Amino acid sequence: MYGIGTRSLAELFGTFWLVFGGCGSAVLAAKFITPEANTPINIGIGLVGVSLAFGLTVLTMAYAIGHISGCHLNPAVSVGLTVAGRFKAAELAYYVLAQVAGGAAGAGVLYVIAAGKPGFAIDTTAAGAFATNGYGAFSPGGYSLVSCAVAEVVLTGFFLLIILGATDKKAPAGFAPIAIGLGLALIHLIGIPVTNLSVNPARSTGPALLVGDTPLTQLWLFWVAPIAGAALGAGAYRLLSKESPPAV
Amino acid sequence: MYGIGTRSLAELFGTFWLVFGGCGSAVLAAKFITPEANTPINIGIGLVGVSLAFGLTVLTMAYAIGHISGCHLNPAVSVGLTVAGRFKAAELAYYVLAQVAGGAAGAGVLYVIAAGKPGFAIDTTAAGAFATNGYGAFSPGGYSLVSCAVAEVVLTGFFLLIILGATDKKAPAGFAPIAIGLGLALIHLIGIPVTNLSVNPARSTGPALLVGDTPLTQLWLFWVAPIAGAALGAGAYRLLSKESPPAV
Amino acid sequence: MYGIGTRSLAELFGTFWLVFGGCGSAVLAAKFITPEANTPINIGIGLVGVSLAFGLTVLTMAYAIGHISGCHLNPAVSVGLTVAGRFKAAELAYYVLAQVAGGAAGAGVLYVIAAGKPGFAIDTTAAGAFATNGYGAFSPGGYSLVSCAVAEVVLTGFFLLIILGATDKKAPAGFAPIAIGLGLALIHLIGIPVTNLSVNPARSTGPALLVGDTPLTQLWLFWVAPIAGAALGAGAYRLLSKESPPAV
Amino acid sequence: MYGIGTRSLAELFGTFWLVFGGCGSAVLAAKFITPEANTPINIGIGLVGVSLAFGLTVLTMAYAIGHISGCHLNPAVSVGLTVAGRFKAAELAYYVLAQVAGGAAGAGVLYVIAAGKPGFAIDTTAAGAFATNGYGAFSPGGYSLVSCAVAEVVLTGFFLLIILGATDKKAPAGFAPIAIGLGLALIHLIGIPVTNLSVNPARSTGPALLVGDTPLTQLWLFWVAPIAGAALGAGAYRLLSKESPPAV
Repeated sequence: MYGIGTRSLAELFGTFWLVFGGCGSAVLAAKFITPEANTPINIGIGLVGVSLAFGLTVLTMAYAIGHISGCHLNPAVSVGLTVAGRFKAAELAYYVLAQVAGGAAGAGVLYVIAAGKPGFAIDTTAAGAFATNGYGAFSPGGYSLVSCAVAEVVLTGFFLLIILGATDKKAPAGFAPIAIGLGLALIHLIGIPVTNLSVNPARSTGPALLVGDTPLTQLWLFWVAPIAGAALGAGAYRLLSKESPPAV
Repeated sequence: MYGIGTRSLAELFGTFWLVFGGCGSAVLAAKFITPEANTPINIGIGLVGVSLAFGLTVLTMAYAIGHISGCHLNPAVSVGLTVAGRFKAAELAYYVLAQVAGGAAGAGVLYVIAAGKPGFAIDTTAAGAFATNGYGAFSPGGYSLVSCAVAEVVLTGFFLLIILGATDKKAPAGFAPIAIGLGLALIHLIGIPVTNLSVNPARSTGPALLVGDTPLTQLWLFWVAPIAGAALGAGAYRLLSKESPPAV
Repeated sequence: MYGIGTRSLAELFGTFWLVFGGCGSAVLAAKFITPEANTPINIGIGLVGVSLAFGLTVLTMAYAIGHISGCHLNPAVSVGLTVAGRFKAAELAYYVLAQVAGGAAGAGVLYVIAAGKPGFAIDTTAAGAFATNGYGAFSPGGYSLVSCAVAEVVLTGFFLLIILGATDKKAPAGFAPIAIGLGLALIHLIGIPVTNLSVNPARSTGPALLVGDTPLTQLWLFWVAPIAGAALGAGAYRLLSKESPPAV
Repeated sequence: MYGIGTRSLAELFGTFWLVFGGCGSAVLAAKFITPEANTPINIGIGLVGVSLAFGLTVLTMAYAIGHISGCHLNPAVSVGLTVAGRFKAAELAYYVLAQVAGGAAGAGVLYVIAAGKPGFAIDTTAAGAFATNGYGAFSPGGYSLVSCAVAEVVLTGFFLLIILGATDKKAPAGFAPIAIGLGLALIHLIGIPVTNLSVNPARSTGPALLVGDTPLTQLWLFWVAPIAGAALGAGAYRLLSKESPPAV
């Protein structure tokens, strides 16, 4: 068992990677018009590529640092694991702080790279600017606050169900990072047009701090809904698996 | 061994996820036109993304709840496993009811989210409306009833072959969810233009109940063909693996 | 150890699936124009989806029937394994016949489905018609015979290197189907524009028998080049792994 | 333990595959306009397919030759493993030479195939010609030297973190090729528009030698930045995992 300092540092690195890689794929590569074509052809990675990128940040880090910190990379996941009795409430603050710091740093380094393209500018009036999350007019597809809240709660709930089930002692050992990483990819395949997809307050906070403006004023939803969903998902898994209440 | 109540609840949750996630990816994200572009560019997930989404709902649930209920999520799979002697006929009704209920609930919650987009409406005269399955004029590519029936029978048959083979005691342990989940993704890569792809009566029933109209009157095919295919596939695997007849 | 009859039947089923699924994804789903759009949008699976489909037919069958027949599904693979001393030359004819029969049946059933779409017709003068392989004027990208031969030899050679390495006793157990299946997906990501991608004489023969015409007269290349490549790849692996000559 | 000659030969084969397959997918298949369409439709693999291809070259080779040479396929990886105390400095030169030779041969054979298409020519004034890497005017998206350097350093650093973590004795055995291969796919999903993505001096050298001109004069960056990033990533992992200094 590593000390809380080392484990928090691992969470910081891992959440840096999640935000840098996931949001980076969206900002840098979602659209890419081939320069040499007579008629413009988009060969960018689109929402399939962005979904895979978010999922693979978690899959890769879960194999790389899972044995160090457990690889939460997400305050909602840390809360859900606490509700499920798998994580100590006393360590929650360290993990959440490290995750938010890592996410902010990831967004910052991404900005340094993105800004090196001539003509780069963040349009703070556009939905999804710099991979921020939003609802209503700042939902990529214009979805209402209620739709966005329901989507984030349901998706985070099932994310926790996947995490708790795949890491259960009765599940096959070693495969959890595949289930969890590809689960996050799946979640993005479903919901990017709704909220630009969060299920992770640290992932939302990084770009919002950088962009400010409406993404920052809407940030509350991407703390409240994922954490509520995570608690519900953890409760649902305890119901299913009939785990006795944890003695934290 | 969990009780039938807990296992049925797991099937309900799992089939909710299959319909919510698979159909959700189709309804919410298959097409997505970038709002800021001068000329419209589609960066939606397309049929590749929808196929991956359906497959990943099963992959993730198989790791999450496979150790609880076996993760059928599909009346045709439950029937096929019964034919193969791997599931008790006496429990079939519980599983099928839970699967249908879960699928209907998944379609319902998806509707709540989808309806939050301004201008949302289901065109009940269009093939594939709200991810429903259909044949003839309601096949996405206009395929005939015979084509659609053959496709569903063959694809479900091989789905069962994959399930029975990958969970055979002689197959490598722990990998079955990957084979089965990616197998379902493959099946969708082949056949969405034909029937919008079912191979799962519960997946077809959820959206059909919600849309009503032609999808509901065509629903019979997506019970008959997948179940017939599953029985054939189970028989084929018994032929291959020379398993002795089960003593259920 | 199963008898040669059962194992050959497994090869027949498996190669049916490879041709039906791989070629089926190309014929049915590579292009799909959304019917309801004002301006046509292609949401079909494209060459990425076709590549994944071919790869996943092998991944799924390797988990499903690998413990029965070894899951070659490909005369070139059976030859390569014989060269490497992993398969008995005396059984080669049974496997190859079963593979060719399965591939032809897969193409036939696919035809039944495809023909159920109004206006369906095979243009035998077009490269890649009904997923056939070809060179020169019948290469999808117009590549010369030499380019096509080099591509098929090199790609089949590395396919055998992957197969022999991933199933080596020193490689991690259970993962070979992932390496081999995703290896075939990779091979298609590289080479579909060149020959429409074979690396498998049985896969080429099925559609060619059905289409006849030029694809049938060009079929020789897709027996010669993959088998030559497989023998070279098997030799290269023996060089690398310093296996002593087999005593077949 | 295989001798240095055999292991170097395995590295040569493996890096051939990485460059032939990864760059090959970009050169041959990134764009593919369907010939029979009235209005041109691109069904090529795009940046998603190219990213998967690069990743799968490493995933497949890691299962095929990982037990022979360790499957570095990349001078930056070999340097990083040396810094981490996992590879002998005395063998570094053999591996790097083999990797560069394999990469050059892979680019050469790819050229033979590509040149068989009528009208083929390499435009040495265009960014990313024949899959070369570049910065500034030779960055596919026009990114500055600073952006390109930061991207290559950060991405290679995390690549090493993934490699060192996933192959740690505390990580689940057998899964490292999945984490590392899909990690390289992820890295390409993020950064192709920036530098056409290297993180691997041997991958950059092959096409640059063939194209000459600006790609060759810019090649220095794709040795310096990946190696610097690899050393940093190895240092970061040692910090995280508290490994004691190696006694090489």
